[in-house]
Amino acid sequence: MTKFKFQSGTKAYFGKDCMFDNKGDLIKLGKKAFIVTGKTSGKTSGALDDVVSIFEGVGIKYEVFDKIENNPSLENVKLGGMAAANSDADFIVGIGGGSPLDAAKAIAILATNDIEPIQLIKNDFYNRPLPIAAIPTTAGTGSEVTAASILTIPEYETKMSFVHEDVFPKVAFLDAKYTESMSRDIAVNTAVDAMSHAIEGYLNKTATLVSDMFAIEALNVFGECLINLGENNFDYETREKLLYSSMLAGLTIAQTGTTIAHGIGYSLTYFKNIPHGKANGLLLTEYLRFNNSVAKDRIQNVLNALKIKSIDDFGSYMKKLVISDIEFSEDELKKYASLAMKQKNTAKNLRSVCEEDMYEILLKSLG
Amino acid sequence: MTKFKFQSGTKAYFGKDCMFDNKGDLIKLGKKAFIVTGKTSGKTSGALDDVVSIFEGVGIKYEVFDKIENNPSLENVKLGGMAAANSDADFIVGIGGGSPLDAAKAIAILATNDIEPIQLIKNDFYNRPLPIAAIPTTAGTGSEVTAASILTIPEYETKMSFVHEDVFPKVAFLDAKYTESMSRDIAVNTAVDAMSHAIEGYLNKTATLVSDMFAIEALNVFGECLINLGENNFDYETREKLLYSSMLAGLTIAQTGTTIAHGIGYSLTYFKNIPHGKANGLLLTEYLRFNNSVAKDRIQNVLNALKIKSIDDFGSYMKKLVISDIEFSEDELKKYASLAMKQKNTAKNLRSVCEEDMYEILLKSLG
Repeated sequence: MTKFKFQSGTKAYFGKDCMFDNKGDLIKLGKKAFIVTGKTSGKTSGALDDVVSIFEGVGIKYEVFDKIENNPSLENVKLGGMAAANSDADFIVGIGGGSPLDAAKAIAILATNDIEPIQLIKNDFYNRPLPIAAIPTTAGTGSEVTAASILTIPEYETKMSFVHEDVFPKVAFLDAKYTESMSRDIAVNTAVDAMSHAIEGYLNKTATLVSDMFAIEALNVFGECLINLGENNFDYETREKLLYSSMLAGLTIAQTGTTIAHGIGYSLTYFKNIPHGKANGLLLTEYLRFNNSVAKDRIQNVLNALKIKSIDDFGSYMKKLVISDIEFSEDELKKYASLAMKQKNTAKNLRSVCEEDMYEILLKSLG
Repeated sequence: MTKFKFQSGTKAYFGKDCMFDNKGDLIKLGKKAFIVTGKTSGKTSGALDDVVSIFEGVGIKYEVFDKIENNPSLENVKLGGMAAANSDADFIVGIGGGSPLDAAKAIAILATNDIEPIQLIKNDFYNRPLPIAAIPTTAGTGSEVTAASILTIPEYETKMSFVHEDVFPKVAFLDAKYTESMSRDIAVNTAVDAMSHAIEGYLNKTATLVSDMFAIEALNVFGECLINLGENNFDYETREKLLYSSMLAGLTIAQTGTTIAHGIGYSLTYFKNIPHGKANGLLLTEYLRFNNSVAKDRIQNVLNALKIKSIDDFGSYMKKLVISDIEFSEDELKKYASLAMKQKNTAKNLRSVCEEDMYEILLKSLG
């Protein structure tokens, strides 16, 4: 057997009203909360109101910071970190999709460490971050059960991640009712993100026995949603399954991280503003084709779990789900290929990859 | 979907030399260690020497408390708690089978709380326990990844458990080489204990989607060991699989706890000194028969994972594996049935159970 590490630092509650049922685990985190969310999702999902009502019921003070951008930049989390430090908050609540949850982790560190945000990327901090509660309002990020945070770094023209066990959320509340306010596009794109986490965690040089178990179960559950997802049928049962699958995929990448679909996708988001999950979705089919020569059996396991016959069928399905008419020049694709080579997760790809390979995947996916 | 909680508070390293490879996670726990182990297993396994050599290499002080009995009593952990409190240790290292690991959790609490040990059973303590590192030398307890501790309470003539998230070991090192010094009987009995954790966690009213995944995988892996186990063939690969299966079963009961096979078995250990895993093993077949009327499908899943055709075949296999010629009087069995009704885990059994049922299971198993 191989060596491995298994770690899951988050107590995750799942199910309708799970936050109210287990509010003791939220309010015990501190006396004043700094709530990190985006402009809309916290409010429209109802999660922000629910958190505020719990805090007001027990006299916990709070401050709402609703300025998290999509794909938060270092500058954006710096602003949040300063506000958190000045707020006297002793814990952080992240509410939203991957952007607010990832930002919450950065802000939890910046609140207690007088550092420049770029230092986050090297885990260059010394004081313990504030404890975090995470409430996802999308079913895709998995960030509520990971120790990873992805931030946009204009200096490097890309997104980069940091991972530190001290930012595992102490508690997460996964309630599908908070995902009901998503638009069709956000629901689909974030679902595709979750699927790509499970696939990239499974087709990963750092995959472990435990991460494989989570990944295959994530894909099994995702497979049960494929038809409804393709028909834009987001009934409550499907919402719950997608949220559960997303959590399992998060538990997967908490062990493994991602690979090149994510690494390439960051450029599509950075330069063309393509939503993160959609960016992965546009690349996944060619990513599977590229890896198939070295990982035929494992890719077959992925397809079996999804109940899809072949990579071609996977491609047909994805083409209906994720549509883009954005055009790319040869120079753009070459630049993205070059940038992807610098991502940490590139080394984790099952098949070794060079810049030319990256370009080929981009060209076949988007050319 | 049902509501659930998923929590795993332990960073678990698995594989040969995993403690040396990741000693940073051990030594960061504090400046002085209080090492909790039994009279022999810490030494014969080599784990104690390895821990000591790591501590001496970096100048961490330590004190060895090797007085943990099998099935440690309140009195036994009280002694350890006082010694720990007087030692100025700031972290605990548990080395051994379930007894030392469970005792380490009790001692971690008693070291920082001036309470009577009986208060542990009600989680009646206020100060944070010392952090714990756990190194199993058997493949059975799963205690290295749970927040549970089972203690013997003479006042109640039984064993009782406490569960508190603050005693999840911060780190566990699962290295099959430390399990090689077990005798055949201890290896078999502890393996049967692990299997019973997976089965009782799966046939459990508090089972969750996540615990089911762990349980079935634990049984899949255990099923790969059945032939070697029956032939007393403990090659290294089998040792590793049993240790991995035991960890997965531990992750299962960390979500669910156990049920009546454990609850009844405590009396066999308390009154007749039958080793814990063996006690479960003597009861498991009739336990499955009893539950079959309400849990036919789930029991079939258990058998499928083990690759065993029927409960009868399961019974035949267990009769070869776990042998006892101890005799029991009717009065004894009645007493055990009565005591089992008082166990917390009785309410978790899939089929509701009365004292007469308990007696029937005992009679058919041991009569």
